Amino acid sequence: MPPLLPCVETLSLVDHHCHSVVDGDLDRSEFESLLTEAEAPGPLGGTLFDSAIGFAVRRWCAPVLDLPPHASPEDYLARRADLGAAEVNRRFLQAAGAEALCLDTGFAPGAVLPLAEMGALAGATAHEIVRLEQVAEEVAAVGPGAAGFAEAFRERLRERTASAVGLKSIAAYRVGLALPGERPGDAEVTAAAGRWLASIEAGAAPRLADPTLQSFLVWCGVDRGLPIQFHVGYGDADVDLHRCDPLLLTDLIRAVEPTGTPIMLLHNYPFHRHAGYLAQVFPHVFVDVGLATHNVGHRAPALIAETLELAPYGKFLFSSDAFGLAELYHLGSLLFRQGLSDHLRTGLDDGVWTEEDAARIARLAGGENARRVYGLEQR
Amino acid sequence: MPPLLPCVETLSLVDHHCHSVVDGDLDRSEFESLLTEAEAPGPLGGTLFDSAIGFAVRRWCAPVLDLPPHASPEDYLARRADLGAAEVNRRFLQAAGAEALCLDTGFAPGAVLPLAEMGALAGATAHEIVRLEQVAEEVAAVGPGAAGFAEAFRERLRERTASAVGLKSIAAYRVGLALPGERPGDAEVTAAAGRWLASIEAGAAPRLADPTLQSFLVWCGVDRGLPIQFHVGYGDADVDLHRCDPLLLTDLIRAVEPTGTPIMLLHNYPFHRHAGYLAQVFPHVFVDVGLATHNVGHRAPALIAETLELAPYGKFLFSSDAFGLAELYHLGSLLFRQGLSDHLRTGLDDGVWTEEDAARIARLAGGENARRVYGLEQR
Amino acid sequence: MPPLLPCVETLSLVDHHCHSVVDGDLDRSEFESLLTEAEAPGPLGGTLFDSAIGFAVRRWCAPVLDLPPHASPEDYLARRADLGAAEVNRRFLQAAGAEALCLDTGFAPGAVLPLAEMGALAGATAHEIVRLEQVAEEVAAVGPGAAGFAEAFRERLRERTASAVGLKSIAAYRVGLALPGERPGDAEVTAAAGRWLASIEAGAAPRLADPTLQSFLVWCGVDRGLPIQFHVGYGDADVDLHRCDPLLLTDLIRAVEPTGTPIMLLHNYPFHRHAGYLAQVFPHVFVDVGLATHNVGHRAPALIAETLELAPYGKFLFSSDAFGLAELYHLGSLLFRQGLSDHLRTGLDDGVWTEEDAARIARLAGGENARRVYGLEQR
Repeated sequence: MPPLLPCVETLSLVDHHCHSVVDGDLDRSEFESLLTEAEAPGPLGGTLFDSAIGFAVRRWCAPVLDLPPHASPEDYLARRADLGAAEVNRRFLQAAGAEALCLDTGFAPGAVLPLAEMGALAGATAHEIVRLEQVAEEVAAVGPGAAGFAEAFRERLRERTASAVGLKSIAAYRVGLALPGERPGDAEVTAAAGRWLASIEAGAAPRLADPTLQSFLVWCGVDRGLPIQFHVGYGDADVDLHRCDPLLLTDLIRAVEPTGTPIMLLHNYPFHRHAGYLAQVFPHVFVDVGLATHNVGHRAPALIAETLELAPYGKFLFSSDAFGLAELYHLGSLLFRQGLSDHLRTGLDDGVWTEEDAARIARLAGGENARRVYGLEQR
Repeated sequence: MPPLLPCVETLSLVDHHCHSVVDGDLDRSEFESLLTEAEAPGPLGGTLFDSAIGFAVRRWCAPVLDLPPHASPEDYLARRADLGAAEVNRRFLQAAGAEALCLDTGFAPGAVLPLAEMGALAGATAHEIVRLEQVAEEVAAVGPGAAGFAEAFRERLRERTASAVGLKSIAAYRVGLALPGERPGDAEVTAAAGRWLASIEAGAAPRLADPTLQSFLVWCGVDRGLPIQFHVGYGDADVDLHRCDPLLLTDLIRAVEPTGTPIMLLHNYPFHRHAGYLAQVFPHVFVDVGLATHNVGHRAPALIAETLELAPYGKFLFSSDAFGLAELYHLGSLLFRQGLSDHLRTGLDDGVWTEEDAARIARLAGGENARRVYGLEQR
Repeated sequence: MPPLLPCVETLSLVDHHCHSVVDGDLDRSEFESLLTEAEAPGPLGGTLFDSAIGFAVRRWCAPVLDLPPHASPEDYLARRADLGAAEVNRRFLQAAGAEALCLDTGFAPGAVLPLAEMGALAGATAHEIVRLEQVAEEVAAVGPGAAGFAEAFRERLRERTASAVGLKSIAAYRVGLALPGERPGDAEVTAAAGRWLASIEAGAAPRLADPTLQSFLVWCGVDRGLPIQFHVGYGDADVDLHRCDPLLLTDLIRAVEPTGTPIMLLHNYPFHRHAGYLAQVFPHVFVDVGLATHNVGHRAPALIAETLELAPYGKFLFSSDAFGLAELYHLGSLLFRQGLSDHLRTGLDDGVWTEEDAARIARLAGGENARRVYGLEQR
């Protein structure tokens, strides 16, 4: 790769969708299980280091731990253990070069760092993104009764989002993205809440997976007036990927349009061109290719170029979607920079835009779009 | 970009799917609303000039208006206003370098130029493509009665297509492309017409959106013996893009095959590889990537290369799908030429084909395929 | 194209999915009908030599028949006829450079060569892949009665697979890939067998196209403990491509996971990125891009690069899916080598991996993955 364009290298990024990192040491099996969206390497498939992201770790993360590029997985993990989790996390979060994080606090299995500590480690302002389903499950666990669920959820959402900058829906994981366009009626919500609460009373885990309720949550988010992030596309083996095409959200997107509430389509791979289309034709739709950016490694430039075929530059954001491994903060940031730099340099070489245009695009995608949409300046 | 291959630069194109242009002056908001498939720029997303097509306008259209490449949007629009719509339209239509236009006359909101005038401006022969739904809506407005609808439509179609070279279906916009394979029976058509006409009598706008009737229209088109264009894929916010995958047409395509009637799949993005497959395996299916070609700007070469992975060269056509802005005629043509030239040059550099092969491919895609399929030579 | 990397050029390939070749001479129409997935060239679309694969034949196959590169179709076919089918088949199978073939013996219309002869011609070990539907249709033709079908199938499958290395399902062609996740119950199987056998007794051809029975076949394959190949994506006009997205297999893939039975996703185009996702997140899923590799000709590098965005290198296999024309063995092998070499060289140029890494990846994809999954070493 040629060196980064200066206008990209010096960008102070806003990471508009990320998660916390694990604060303990990891053995090889734990490391590999956090590396990709696979739960673990399989007996027939070999090590997950032999993948695009694995090679990116060896190439770009090894030097941050004072190793030569392309260090072997064994050397890499030994050095990581020597340094210890705290130092490793500090180094990678610093290396990411973000000035602000919008952290989804709703998914935190195991021992992960709290919001404030993440911000301190990264040297960044840390903002909270509140996961709608997590709030609903918290409310359901208290046993509000079917008739009281809707109001209890709204009340709890107000409390939980007092200082949040955005919301997150994982409807994709639970019921897919073909949510109805219409806001569900009160009676429908009460009936669906009744079924859900009854199942919890009968012993089921309080895991929300109901299209009516998930639609209700989204509309409460619209009423709350914060940008709503949707998991779209690529995820782990728990997702039904064919139900996660962002085009399935079209009806809901149309219904939300009059409110002006921003809809943030996250990840999107392998449907990133579909997402780019939505970002072009709907004024309130924004897109990123987080998660995929670091998973595809050296193919990040192709991914970004495809997304920007239709997505206007004012609608495209950076996110790492890093979770668990601090490496993913660094890789998400670095591979985004490489992809964006490659995109801009190709355009400069081909006479597509001027240097000033390229620098403006870099600022939009790197942070200005996020600051504008989430209103981060006013905070 | 390297200069165009001579065999591409000198091509006299047949634009097998295009629309008319607005004949009045446009302010910035009107210009941006015609630039992409977005209805207008949104409050949070910035100007639509900051998009692939916006940069293409500044780069490639500015010089046609005597401005330097990369002129600012403000300078561009000021110069455009100075020259006036008539001169602007003349310059871009001439620059497109088409020898023949197949103009879809069925979509003409606002003040657009008539067929003959478009041909005169472009210095091209202008042929008409008749939109099936528009004919049906014209017939419905007259009130033929349910039982008389089918025959009235056939009769009106004969009149309207006396000198037309093709037909167009916008089923994609109205009901999606999952049309039934079988030709609907007379009783079905009468019943569906009855429902539609009753809704019009009850005050609804005469907007056709019925799978049975839309299928009936297509089969009348087959009986008429003219190539049938289908809107496929990419369009404005009114389209449900996930219902516009060309693969959903497979049953209908199979049913039409024995008649030999050419099926012309238009646009196709982001399903252009799917369309390429259909063009390979069905002898009567042809594809283009109009509309997308100018919207993706400097990514047009990637688009064309992907489409031609499976689509045979005898099945791939040029279209601009320009509408409203005369700039889109110029960009559609220029970016098609750049994409095709890049594709052919890459092949020459890699030893994929000879110079003679490359020139033959250029002639096929640029015009020979269209002339053969629409029978333009005999006209 | 630059020359192949030595580590790719010298690879001895395992072709884990291929078919037999025609052993008689072919006229132009017969040759073109075997060249792509089109049944034949159409009256309006021109010769199928004017396609990516057609140019690949002229460029890469002509020299194997002692002609200059880019020989005309006429010269090529004349030389082919002069040499005769036996010599042509020998040359191309040798040129492919495979050390082992896994041959699907279930599709053999016309006069094709038997397994042992294919191995001898190619200078390779020939292993058998048994097509599940073919065994079922063989059993049905004998008339086992509904109640006896399941056991008769299991018995016949045991016999037919005594020395086979894998199984193949063409559910994609018959009912699409949205197979149920659950193993069908005995009563369901008996009922479905009853309906099928009755239709055969009533005169229908014994062509299996029933989701319950096709699911039953797959589970019998799982019980048999051999890797199961699935036709996915691209095929001829008989396939409903929108029912062949590998993501539709997700439920079945999840259900099979605990057994550890390898699921081999074949072809996958244009859904190869979807397949790459499945190969990443499910430990027992493996992918290839056979058939598409030779059909897309010089675009094979793009195809392979896209597939390997998510698919780990331990999960990606070579196959030609050659059928009928011996040329397809040579082209499948050569274009795979070119695509893989281009992928590895790009990575080397960009510092993505070391020379040793590149050589290891080449060995994995070229044969080690296949030998491990099919247990070929032990044979």
